[in-house]
Order: sequence, then structure tokens, then C-alpha cells
Amino acid sequence: MNKRGFASDNNSGVHPEIIKAMSSVNDGHTLAYGNDIYTEKAISRLKKEFGEESEIFFVFIGTAANVLGLDAITQPYNSIICPETAHINQDECGAPDRYTGCKLLPVETPDGKLSIGLMQKYMHGFGDQHHSQPKVISITQATEMGTVYSVEEIKEICDFAHKHNMLVHMDGARIANAAVSLGLSFKEFTRDAGVDVLSFGGTKNGLMYGEAVIFFNKELAHDFKFRRKQGMQLSSKMRYISAQFDCYMEKAIWKTNAEHSNKMASLLESLVKDIPGIKITQKVQANGIFAILPKELIPVLQKEFFFYVWDEDKSEVRWMTSFDTTEEDVRGFAKLLKEKVTA
Amino acid sequence: MNKRGFASDNNSGVHPEIIKAMSSVNDGHTLAYGNDIYTEKAISRLKKEFGEESEIFFVFIGTAANVLGLDAITQPYNSIICPETAHINQDECGAPDRYTGCKLLPVETPDGKLSIGLMQKYMHGFGDQHHSQPKVISITQATEMGTVYSVEEIKEICDFAHKHNMLVHMDGARIANAAVSLGLSFKEFTRDAGVDVLSFGGTKNGLMYGEAVIFFNKELAHDFKFRRKQGMQLSSKMRYISAQFDCYMEKAIWKTNAEHSNKMASLLESLVKDIPGIKITQKVQANGIFAILPKELIPVLQKEFFFYVWDEDKSEVRWMTSFDTTEEDVRGFAKLLKEKVTA
Amino acid sequence: MNKRGFASDNNSGVHPEIIKAMSSVNDGHTLAYGNDIYTEKAISRLKKEFGEESEIFFVFIGTAANVLGLDAITQPYNSIICPETAHINQDECGAPDRYTGCKLLPVETPDGKLSIGLMQKYMHGFGDQHHSQPKVISITQATEMGTVYSVEEIKEICDFAHKHNMLVHMDGARIANAAVSLGLSFKEFTRDAGVDVLSFGGTKNGLMYGEAVIFFNKELAHDFKFRRKQGMQLSSKMRYISAQFDCYMEKAIWKTNAEHSNKMASLLESLVKDIPGIKITQKVQANGIFAILPKELIPVLQKEFFFYVWDEDKSEVRWMTSFDTTEEDVRGFAKLLKEKVTA
Amino acid sequence: MNKRGFASDNNSGVHPEIIKAMSSVNDGHTLAYGNDIYTEKAISRLKKEFGEESEIFFVFIGTAANVLGLDAITQPYNSIICPETAHINQDECGAPDRYTGCKLLPVETPDGKLSIGLMQKYMHGFGDQHHSQPKVISITQATEMGTVYSVEEIKEICDFAHKHNMLVHMDGARIANAAVSLGLSFKEFTRDAGVDVLSFGGTKNGLMYGEAVIFFNKELAHDFKFRRKQGMQLSSKMRYISAQFDCYMEKAIWKTNAEHSNKMASLLESLVKDIPGIKITQKVQANGIFAILPKELIPVLQKEFFFYVWDEDKSEVRWMTSFDTTEEDVRGFAKLLKEKVTA
Repeated sequence: MNKRGFASDNNSGVHPEIIKAMSSVNDGHTLAYGNDIYTEKAISRLKKEFGEESEIFFVFIGTAANVLGLDAITQPYNSIICPETAHINQDECGAPDRYTGCKLLPVETPDGKLSIGLMQKYMHGFGDQHHSQPKVISITQATEMGTVYSVEEIKEICDFAHKHNMLVHMDGARIANAAVSLGLSFKEFTRDAGVDVLSFGGTKNGLMYGEAVIFFNKELAHDFKFRRKQGMQLSSKMRYISAQFDCYMEKAIWKTNAEHSNKMASLLESLVKDIPGIKITQKVQANGIFAILPKELIPVLQKEFFFYVWDEDKSEVRWMTSFDTTEEDVRGFAKLLKEKVTA
Repeated sequence: MNKRGFASDNNSGVHPEIIKAMSSVNDGHTLAYGNDIYTEKAISRLKKEFGEESEIFFVFIGTAANVLGLDAITQPYNSIICPETAHINQDECGAPDRYTGCKLLPVETPDGKLSIGLMQKYMHGFGDQHHSQPKVISITQATEMGTVYSVEEIKEICDFAHKHNMLVHMDGARIANAAVSLGLSFKEFTRDAGVDVLSFGGTKNGLMYGEAVIFFNKELAHDFKFRRKQGMQLSSKMRYISAQFDCYMEKAIWKTNAEHSNKMASLLESLVKDIPGIKITQKVQANGIFAILPKELIPVLQKEFFFYVWDEDKSEVRWMTSFDTTEEDVRGFAKLLKEKVTA
Repeated sequence: MNKRGFASDNNSGVHPEIIKAMSSVNDGHTLAYGNDIYTEKAISRLKKEFGEESEIFFVFIGTAANVLGLDAITQPYNSIICPETAHINQDECGAPDRYTGCKLLPVETPDGKLSIGLMQKYMHGFGDQHHSQPKVISITQATEMGTVYSVEEIKEICDFAHKHNMLVHMDGARIANAAVSLGLSFKEFTRDAGVDVLSFGGTKNGLMYGEAVIFFNKELAHDFKFRRKQGMQLSSKMRYISAQFDCYMEKAIWKTNAEHSNKMASLLESLVKDIPGIKITQKVQANGIFAILPKELIPVLQKEFFFYVWDEDKSEVRWMTSFDTTEEDVRGFAKLLKEKVTA
Repeated sequence: MNKRGFASDNNSGVHPEIIKAMSSVNDGHTLAYGNDIYTEKAISRLKKEFGEESEIFFVFIGTAANVLGLDAITQPYNSIICPETAHINQDECGAPDRYTGCKLLPVETPDGKLSIGLMQKYMHGFGDQHHSQPKVISITQATEMGTVYSVEEIKEICDFAHKHNMLVHMDGARIANAAVSLGLSFKEFTRDAGVDVLSFGGTKNGLMYGEAVIFFNKELAHDFKFRRKQGMQLSSKMRYISAQFDCYMEKAIWKTNAEHSNKMASLLESLVKDIPGIKITQKVQANGIFAILPKELIPVLQKEFFFYVWDEDKSEVRWMTSFDTTEEDVRGFAKLLKEKVTA
């Protein structure tokens, strides 16, 4: 059996209910490319969550949801403001840059969160033909640093963007963890807060593959079906993505899973935060913990529970919990950590 | 239960063994992005089939396999010769054009197959800075017209390409149907015939999603991992693609399925070819049948067995069989057709 | 002194009045990038010609005028219908394909001219997500084959395009030759006929460099200043392009030059058309002559008057006259041709 | 007559010798697109300066020289490190981002100059498929801040780049000013210092238009003729660019002009640096001066001598001198400044 670690919520498998749902649609012929009843049902369920006027499209992965969502709302002479730590900036091998043609403007942040103050340095050159035109603010919820924007923070960013004739994109690769953390419905901190386009992810929370691009403004989505196909993201046997999302929403698997992984992160934090030599470096608001620990301990711990070093120089590591992390995993890891520190 | 028709081999579901294989890897944590034992195993199995020196990468879909395979072997000032009916030319919403920047040079063919004679009109302008430089010949095996290249035909095209310092790409969305039709191993009419890069497809033959890009020349693949990621085609939970390919090869599901669907196409052909007013327009060498029939019959037949019109003006239709088409489906359809023609 | 030949109107130099005009603005400092009085004056003069509501932008060359004009009116999932012989299709090394991301749909024509009948094969797939969406019809006036569209032919194409929610682009690299040939003002066969965007060229007719992109619909031009800059086509010392266009229009140099080169082409045609063994293959309506002649004569003639072979297989050549071609050049060439044929 | 100011060296006109040289090639027909004797001569002269093994291509402007030079040495999954103030990052409306597909990595610097220390934050992720691969370090000489790299500084950067399998691009829009400032030949601080590709500019120093892309490694240039054409930068009447460069080098106009403009900048610095309330913020090593002055003075001064505000918040302005700036201009401006400060 494969061992569980704290490396990434992508390392986990698929929730058993999801696999069951996928098997259950494996019956006879349906129209390909999303013109089937399962896709209709899944989209209808998501519309109930996000508002009937939303436009919803499935793609294969989060990188594609981000890139194609941004492509739909920009022209190549635009720029996109994002935190330097954003997945679109650090972890997509330049996919947004190449595909949209836009310039990404990375903002250094203490905690992965943008704020109006931090963005000011890029808010100039509007109308100047020599200068890439700022058009999108992209935020990640929950952030890559394990933190979560409050609904007020999101509203403030959205108002600021709209006042400057810009749009807001949200990378929701871990949006379920944020929803649970905030105790809010998805709609309350996306559409209702002013977000224009959302990458709604599930793969890090128990799905196998598939992500939804959700437009809260129909106008922005009017030609997205062509963009998705040209962007190499139209699944022929779409029903197997749709079945996942249908089950994920209907049975609130998003919630069960996110509640659990957030809880495991809290537990881990509480068990290790007072160990001497360990310093938690970010607020633990979702399912990620960032910690500084003695450099020599890292390989020792990794042998039993795999995880990644975040910042070599600072000896900072990242521990991610996931839907299948057990309390036993967490306690075992904390125990090991304590032993090794005091050894 | 969903009814089966003759619209597309993409409308079928997933072979039950494949689903079982996917479930069987749903265990614990593995490294994401293909650094797992299941992916290692699947690739090793494909290398046994295609040669140890092959370089093999999984992506999500056929369009992406084609586009990224072409991207890896071209520069944007190149051109790509292909049949006008090629999937890359007709059915990918311009994905190859946009992503590679290359010019596609479509060749009219009687049967979906390129030949040296037909390509001559584009074989000029080498070295002329005003002219897109021809670099790739792209062929589809089996073709979009249900025909199959002989191994000699492929060799001739590959020799011709290489003599002109060009490369050969093969779109193998239905390569299993071609292998069965030719009675050859995959290697005999790809690598051994001189093909440089292959899109190895399975979704139209019983898989759920996933396609392999196979380079027969390691040099061409040296930076493909970056191209795949930037091309939005790196699956995080790769093990579920790998499990499909592993099972597909190990249990020769590719063969069982393709043999069956080819056989069903032959049966259908034999049952309808002598019906008055029906004209089979292409050789039936794989799992597709093209036929001209009286225009008024089309909607009548479609009500019971869905299929697509290929050429409105000629009243030509396309019937595809798939791995789950039953003899009963075929006989029922042929019977209906005969009744309606003679009604 | 450099000898004149019949190779290309690009091989000629610059009209002396134009050089004089360029020198005359070489005085002190002006704002760079087109914010100067000379540019204002040139644009104002062009607006008088094309209508006050036109939007006019200078770029460096014809290829750029075509590419950026097309870029402004397309999305990357669009396709562009053009004659196979179009400069955008044959002679720009794939610049339109790469920069716009669009698919070019080449139409075989007998004379370089599109017609509704010839385009029909591409008028399908509207709304189908698998298919590049036809958006632009691009015509060249005068064509690359030396022929000229009548104003009725242009109107018919424009009406057809607009009826299908498409736009019309005109490559006017030799528009002055067409205007003279038709005996019409520029406006009558562009804006008034329904053309949406025009590449207004002068380099082949006595200018040094510089071309204008003219939008007849302000909406289409609203962000063109960013597209021009990002497209590497914003000249810093713009006044030297503007001075050329100002002089070209003010002194009707376009007309004098085009009248002369058209006349020289007519003269050449009349002198050679009855020589045995010579066959004029296209109507001579502008400043180009296409002719079939005995293969062995070609290198003999080229030694004294350089020109290009158009179609090796057919032994077809192209002779271009230009603003500085003299009657003596033409008569000398015709005489030589006659001598060699009868030798 | 147009007044001279201190806004930009692009606002100046063309050196009279250059115009004369352009007129002198306006004779008869020559082959278009650079296959003419004037281009041969100009390139031969540049090769004498930069080394016979150099490969040299003319384009229209500096933005294009930068973009196409970078395009030639990158793949779209690469990244390019540059100062945040670099022209390629700030002033090209995202042209490098869109055309190359690469990610630009902007480095904050005190003086527009990169150093190994400053670049360290981006020197990671090599070989990691999720991460844009650093491939090019781009430096500007003289910088956009009016400073100049020493030859040792350039060598250090080049060695560092090559050690990491990276290449060095130099934006030489004001390279003549740097050469004069350093008292070195061009070759000594480009090719000999390890630079791989250079944008060799002249427009800011007395030319009308035209820039050269110079490769110091033939391999890197092997397909550049296609890139230039596809990049919309191949001039048909090339001789008029070539004539400028030939004259610029032959008569050492580059030197006369740059010596003069540098001298004018030094003079201006010496006249204003001790005026109370004025603070020179950068070393004056070429032809640009950056200064902080009382905010309310700016519009007063601009009325008589136009210049641009560099940083609104800091009340920092930029004054550029150019080849035609007179001592009288400088003294007049300094006098006005002194008067207004003490008024």
C-alpha cells in the first residue's frame, strides 16, 4: 500500500464515492463533448450554487482553467497583476504568458494575499501605448501560502478593479478549503463579492481530474466554447468529468473533504507549534502549514513522511494535509517531529 | 439505459476492465505529475511495444497530443502538410495553427490519404525567407475517411520527408483499428516505417481519457516535459491515465476492441452495400463507413440510430462502429435501412 | 548606375519629390511616436480622401499592415478566407498565421480574385466549436496576378461577408495602380464598397517605407495603438513616414506614378502579345504582366533585364513595371524578346 | 522651426550626412529585401567592427531588434531576467512577452544595472517542469537610467550566464553613448566580453530608422532570416537602411554624435548639480540626467524646454541630451532652472 505523507493534496487518490459516480455513468452511448444529460445535470447543480446566470465550462486541469479563463477576458497587450507566489506565476511553466500573450505583474506579499496598497506600483500607464494595459487582478483562494481572504478583502479588491475598468480572476484550486474556513457558501465570496471569473477546482480535494471555469458575467463567456476547444481542453467523453462534479456537489463531498483536511492541518499546527525550534510562518487557515525547522531534521523526517522544502535558504517547509489524511498520520508525524527535535 | 448508435466511437463508454484498473490504483499517496510507479509501469510497457529508445509522455486528449507533438518538432516559421480532411485541419478549432504558429497546408485527397504526388504542389520555397518552410508531413492512421495506409505507403512518405529534411507526424487516434486491419504490430508501421512522432490514442477505443505522445527519436523529445506543462497537459493525478494504458496494453484490450469494431464495420458494409440507392463511397478498412443514401431517409434512420451527415450536398453520411457495438445493433440498423429504402 | 529591370516594383528607388519632402521635415525636435504636426497633417490629408470617420495608423511595411489589421478584427479561433495566391498566404513567411493565431483558408482562383462561388467550400461550421470560425475575407487590389476587382465585385464580396457577420480586409499594396485602372477615387472602391479595413501601401509606388492601416469603422480601431506598439510597428521618428504620405497625397504622386507604371505595362503587353511563342496568361489591368514563353529564352532575357519566373513547370514569368520604368526600357525589352524568339 | 528640448533623443531629427547618404543610393533598381550592394557594404563594415564571424541583420526598430533577437535564442517555456526598468519590460507594450511566449523576470535595481547578487532570486527551478526555465539575461548599455556597465561588470554577467547554460542579450539602443563613455570599441564590451546577441541601435543617435541585430555566435542566427520576415521586419527597400549604417560607421557619425550628446549631459549636470533644491539621482555616464526638483517648477520649465517626469511621487524628472543639443540649449536651460529655483 502507498504511504500517505504531507507533500501535496495532489498526491492523494480519489474519494471512493467519486469513483462510484464515474462508474455509474458508464452505460451505452451519449453524445460526446458535453452534449449529454450528465453534463447538463452537473452544470445545473453548479448553477444552483453560483447563480442561474453563471456560465460554466469543464476543462481538464487547474492550469487550463486559469489560462483559458484569463484568455477569455484579456487581449495580448494587457497585463495581469498577481502575487509573486501565485500558481499562474510560479507553477505553470509560463502557460499564461505564452497562451494569453499578456504580461504578468508579480507582487511580493508577506502571505500570498494581494491588497490595494501592494498593487499600487503597477497601477499606472493606463492609455499609454508603450505600456501593457493592466486588465486583470488574479487572486488565489485559499492562497498558495495556506491563508484565506476574508469576504471584505475580496470585495475591496473587486471594487478597486472595477473602478479601474479591470476584472478579477480567482484561482480556486483550493476553494473548498476556503469556503469551510470562512463558513460561507461559495457564492458569498465569489459572485457576490464581485469576482468575474473563477477557476473552480476539485482535484486537490478528492476528484480525479476536471475543473470548472465559471463566468459570473455571461458577456465574458460568449465565445468560450471556441477558446476551450482551441485551448485543447474539450473532453470528448465529458460525462466522466460531469459525473464527478455532480456527485461532488450533490453529496457535499467538497465539504466533508475540506472540513477534514482543514481540521487535520489545525491539529498538526496545534501539536507542533510549541515544539522548540519549530516556527509556524503563516496563519493556518486552510490545509497548508508553513514552518521553519532545523535544517538537519528535514531529510530525517522526509524519510518517513514525504513533504517539500519551500525555501531552502530559510529552512522553511510546506506540509499539506488532504481529505484522506488520518488523525493517526498527523499524530504520528508530530510525535516523530518532537522526538527528533529533542533527540 | 443510453442507446447505442453509429455517430462516433467517442460516444461509447469505457471498457469495464479499464474502469477496474483505474479503481485498483486508488490507494494511498503517490507522487503527483507522473513520478509514480504506475506511470513507470505503463511507460515501460509501451516501450516494450515501441522500442526502448522511444520517449513517451501522457497528455489528456488527442488534440493536445497532435498539437504538442507538432510544437516539439517545428518552429513557428514552418509549415505542416496534411490532408484537407485531417483532424488537425478540420476539427481542432485551429489549435495547431495558434499554438505552433505554423501554417497548415491542406491537400485535397480522394480518400483521406496523402501521397507524394498530391503533396508536390507544396514542395517548394525551401530556403526562401518569404515562404513558410515545409517541415512536417502529418498523416492519420486509420484516416478520418475510414481508410488505412499500407506500411509501404507510410515508408514512402517517410523516406520522402526525410530526403527533404522534413519529419513525419502520425495522428493515431484510431491506430488500433489500423493495426488490426493491417495485421501488424504498432511498431511495424510507425517506428520501423520511419514515423518520427506519434499521437497514440485510446479514447475512441475504450479508454476514458488520456493519450500518449511517442517520440521515436530521443533528440526531438529533449524538452518535451516543459512543452507539456506549458501546454496545459500535465495531469497531477497521472496514475489514473497510466492505469488505463497499462491495462490497455497488458490485456490487449486495444486489440480485442479494435478487432470487434472493425468486424462490425465490415458486417455493416456487407449487409448494406447491395441495397439499391445506397453507395459506399470509401474502402471500409477500419471502423468507419461512408455512404451516400437518399436524402429523405436520413432523418428517418437517425431517429432510431443516431449518426452524422458528412456532406450535405452529396447526401453522404458517416457510420462509426465502436468496441461496444453489437451484432444485433448492426443487423437491426441494416434491416431498418433496407425496409426504409424499399418502402 | 543600377540597371532597371522587370523583376519587382520593390526594386525601384524612391520618387525624388518624396526624398525632398522627407528632408524638409528634418528640423529641430518634435514629439516622437506620431504626436507631431507632420503626422497630424498627413492623417488629416488621408481622412479627406477616405472620410473623416476613418481611423488611420502608420506602420513600417505592408506585411505588418496586413497582419496587424487582421489581428485587430479577429480572435485566434477565427479563420480568414483568401486567394491561394494572396501575399498574406504565400509571401509573409506565415506572419499572419503566427501573429493572429487564425487559420488561413486558401482558395484556388484562376486570376487571383475571390468570388462568392469560389468561397462556398469554406462557408460552413459557423457556431461549431470544433471548427475555426470564418471571420474575414481578405482580397488584394490590384491582385498579385495583375488583375483588378471592379467596384461591383468588391461590393458583392462585402455584402456577402457582412450578411455572414464577417468582415472584409483589403491588401492595397498596389491600390494606386487599381485606382488608376478603375478610374475611381480610393474611397469609391474601399469604404463606399463596404471594405472594413485597408492596408494602404505606397512602397511599391515610389515611397521609401511606411504603410497605412485604415479602419472604416472606428469601433474596430479602438485599441489599435496598443496592437501597433506590441506588434513592433510604432516608429519613433514618425515624421519621416508622415512626410512621405503627405507629399504622396498632396502632390498626387500616387497617381502620376501609378498611371505611368500601368501605361508601361500596357505598352509592354501590346508589344509582345503577338510575338509567336509568347502567351499572356492574365488580363493586364495594373502594372504586372504574366506570360508563358519558351523556357530556354528565360535566362537569356534575364541577363539583360532581370525578372522572376512565376511557375517553373509552365514556363510562366512575371514582369512588373514601376514608376521609373521608361518607354525605352519597355521597347528595348520587347525588341530583345522578339529577336531572341525569332533567332 | 521646431524647438529643441530635453524630452528624448528620439525627438531629434536625422544627421544631415545620413540623409545625404540615403539620397545617394536612390538610383535605378536593386534587388529588394537586402540582396543589394549597399547592404553588402554596410554589413561588411559592421563585420569589421564586430568580427567577421558575426551575423548581422537589419530590422526597422529597437523594439523589434530586442524581440526578434530574444525570439531567436529562446523557446516559449524560457524566462528572461532583466532590470525592472528595462525597455523590454516597461516600454514595449508586452511585445517580448507576446512574441516569444517567454516570462520576463523583472529585477529591481538602484541604477538600472543587473548584478549577480540581484539576480539570485530567479536562479532556481532549473530542470523543474513546473517552472519557466531561465535562459537569457538581458542588459541595456547604456541603461535606461543613464548609467553604463563597465566591461568587467559585463564580463562577470556573461560568465555567470554561460556557467548556467544561459545567454546574454544586450539592448544597445544607446550603445554609442556607452562606447564613448567607456572609451572602448564596440567589440571590447560586447563580443569580447561574452555578449551573445546585441541590438545595435542608431535611431536615438542621428539615424532615421533601422537597427541591427548582431549575433556573435553563428549557430544562434542560422534561421534568423525566417524569424525576421515572419516578425514583419524585413524591409523591401533595404538599401535605405543600409546606406544609413554604412555612413554612420564609415564617417564615425556614431562617435561624433555620442561624444557630443554625452558632453552636453555632463555640461548640464555640472551647471545644475549645485543649485539648491536640485538633486541628481543617478550617475551621469551617458546622455541622460535624472534629477529631483521642486514639483511646482516642473510645468514652468516644461513650457520652455519640454521633458518628461520620471517618477511623479518623488518629483523626479529625466533630461535627455541628443546629438543636436547645443551648448546654448544647455546653458539656457540651466539658467532658467537657476532663476526659477531662486525666484
